[in-house]
Amino acid sequence: MQEAINVGLCGLGTVGSGVVKILENHKRDIVHQVGCPIEVKKILVNDVNKKRDEAVDSALLTSNVEELVEDPEIDVIVEVMGGIDGTYKVLEKALQNKKHIVTANKDMMAVYGAPLLQLANENQCDVRYEASVAGGIPIIRSLTDGLASDRINKIMGIVNGTTNYILTKMMDEGRTFEDVLEEAQRLGYAEADPSSDIDGIDAARKVSLLSTLAFSMPVDLSDVDVRGIRGMSYDDLAYAEQLGYTIKLLGIAARGEDKIEMSVQPTLVPHSHPLASIKDEYNAVYVYGDAVGETMFYGPGAGQLPTATAVVSDLMDVVKNIRLGVTGRSSVNPQYQKNLKELDEVFSKFFFRLEAEDEAGTFLAITSEFAAHDVSLDKIIQMPKGNDKTAEIVLVTHQASRAQIDDILKKLESLSVIRGIHSYYRVEGEEEQ
Amino acid sequence: MQEAINVGLCGLGTVGSGVVKILENHKRDIVHQVGCPIEVKKILVNDVNKKRDEAVDSALLTSNVEELVEDPEIDVIVEVMGGIDGTYKVLEKALQNKKHIVTANKDMMAVYGAPLLQLANENQCDVRYEASVAGGIPIIRSLTDGLASDRINKIMGIVNGTTNYILTKMMDEGRTFEDVLEEAQRLGYAEADPSSDIDGIDAARKVSLLSTLAFSMPVDLSDVDVRGIRGMSYDDLAYAEQLGYTIKLLGIAARGEDKIEMSVQPTLVPHSHPLASIKDEYNAVYVYGDAVGETMFYGPGAGQLPTATAVVSDLMDVVKNIRLGVTGRSSVNPQYQKNLKELDEVFSKFFFRLEAEDEAGTFLAITSEFAAHDVSLDKIIQMPKGNDKTAEIVLVTHQASRAQIDDILKKLESLSVIRGIHSYYRVEGEEEQ
Repeated sequence: MQEAINVGLCGLGTVGSGVVKILENHKRDIVHQVGCPIEVKKILVNDVNKKRDEAVDSALLTSNVEELVEDPEIDVIVEVMGGIDGTYKVLEKALQNKKHIVTANKDMMAVYGAPLLQLANENQCDVRYEASVAGGIPIIRSLTDGLASDRINKIMGIVNGTTNYILTKMMDEGRTFEDVLEEAQRLGYAEADPSSDIDGIDAARKVSLLSTLAFSMPVDLSDVDVRGIRGMSYDDLAYAEQLGYTIKLLGIAARGEDKIEMSVQPTLVPHSHPLASIKDEYNAVYVYGDAVGETMFYGPGAGQLPTATAVVSDLMDVVKNIRLGVTGRSSVNPQYQKNLKELDEVFSKFFFRLEAEDEAGTFLAITSEFAAHDVSLDKIIQMPKGNDKTAEIVLVTHQASRAQIDDILKKLESLSVIRGIHSYYRVEGEEEQ
Repeated sequence: MQEAINVGLCGLGTVGSGVVKILENHKRDIVHQVGCPIEVKKILVNDVNKKRDEAVDSALLTSNVEELVEDPEIDVIVEVMGGIDGTYKVLEKALQNKKHIVTANKDMMAVYGAPLLQLANENQCDVRYEASVAGGIPIIRSLTDGLASDRINKIMGIVNGTTNYILTKMMDEGRTFEDVLEEAQRLGYAEADPSSDIDGIDAARKVSLLSTLAFSMPVDLSDVDVRGIRGMSYDDLAYAEQLGYTIKLLGIAARGEDKIEMSVQPTLVPHSHPLASIKDEYNAVYVYGDAVGETMFYGPGAGQLPTATAVVSDLMDVVKNIRLGVTGRSSVNPQYQKNLKELDEVFSKFFFRLEAEDEAGTFLAITSEFAAHDVSLDKIIQMPKGNDKTAEIVLVTHQASRAQIDDILKKLESLSVIRGIHSYYRVEGEEEQ
């Protein structure tokens, strides 16, 4: 038997315990595949005396990070403790000491991904972070390996399980956003402070990581145009349904020639589109390649064992590289300079839901604004509200630029016949890519 | 610039031309990723004088295989010409001459996969065959890399595009099998001799390749229990629909403890299951992992550029390995001995469609046979046929073994009240795995 590769595990929460379990439960298969045992030598925790459910040898626990990053016998640091700045400092030190990194930390990667990969290259170390995007779905290696020969033109992903759970329940059970959110919090699917999920920030982090890889272009989190689902109305979902669409919180990254766009926003997709059928807390990433056409990767976006599966698969990859003596070669520097589309270069169809005076001329006044901006309409519903003299008007445009839509929104707001603009969302998945 | 890696391309049909196109069109991105150019040095064709649409330098063409496998400057053989025994001989020679192999040939791999990989190991060569299963979907590397740390318990795949196209059209347009098959042949989606597709043989080859990888067990094509869709009735699809199911031709490979089962057969899946929504010629592979849970990989299962994408991604992988000096390490010998389940160990729900006398006692006689074999019923439809004194009876059982079902079938055939057993199919995707 070959000598073991030693791991320093940072964090023994949900995912960390999952990593320990998988390394234990699948030990025999793992040894067969990588050719040597993988041993957890030290585990960094906040409190070594805390009662734990898991059967972990307490001699492995330490609250002193030096015992991991300064131990010459530790080959790989597996980081599943979360945190951004402090965690980056730990990993920076680890890389300087020639330790490879496997991390599930999208927050840290979205901010420090570029310098971390750079430092890894300088030290001939591997950095792997499959678990940071879409949990158990091997999307990062599908982009870097499986579709490596293709030119990726667009990615649309349901990459946040909490918001997909909320939208599924709202639609299937006819419930309000607030009601479902509260339930999700009670069941532990949503955090006590749910902002990162429902405001789209978590999804934006994943979009920035996927874009960097898919387009070989360095991007920043702040380059992603973000709108979450906070306070979304059931009526939006119901009208979308009536028009043949499902609303999903989609992360979108697209390339046109040499410029890219990135956004996270509630988006209508036709019922027939594979993304429309992704339910509950599941994730899915739809990829449009120049040559391959349309592919989709579906699975659990979070959860202890799915995430730990991704971490341990990454770890096995690193261990294979260590044994072959080829670490530090896997990451490729971005090939292109950052080049973002302007708002008049970002095109899609749009859905609008408006409340207006129910009187002669209203409809003409509204549609005239669209015509004046050269935006034509694909679908229209007008429904009297009954109780007072107002009507609900729902429109879906043909392709329009984001700049055109912003202009139209401003004009509509100032129209006297309009009582309110309830919502407007992007519409995707209908045109040929 | 580093020296180029030279490729010998065997075959310049649909996929071969696609490989040439992708290597040309994505040249810049490919060089950036692998660090050197990839050049096609020779192309093996049947007839060097044949008129070709593609802009291929005619000086590259040869009909003499020696010019590829004996050329010391050729590093990799890309085999996209099809064929089984003769093709294996070519690749055997290539490996003996230390050339790496990338192939899209499932027919050859299903028969000669094991000796080919063995010979590759002995010669420190790589063999890659992603394109041989589900075209553009990177399912092989998802099993070997992305889900490497997990224990795969079951795979269910729509891995034949032609039959999925036929079933989709039959269902959506209410047409007969024969009618849609003829159209598919006219459109080039089905071969003039469609047996390999519609009798399930093509799917069986893919199931055997996936099983070997997923379960780390050597299997033979003949171990797969195969039933295709030839002559399937629209009524089967319609009754399944009425009960909430879609019929798909599924390749199934499952492990229970240390034994496995493999089959290809028409299978009912509930409408809500992601496999039910895979339309037309698309492929999808649903994977149940011990830790990851349920994941699905979706995309084009065939076609020039999707298949060529998989081939070129494999080629890039091999080129990276050559440059790192680590070829011949990627394939792992099967870990387990072959161990197949007996028919009384293969369980699932089953769908039956029978025609019976429409008279008192018929229904009791039929259901008694199920009860006598300890098989309970989940769903039942009985419909008088109107024209004569017969009724159509459609049943879905709870879990039963294949042996129980075979016994019941024999008994039903001998029942005097039964006019005919129209069909019986497996039902999957409802139980917790």
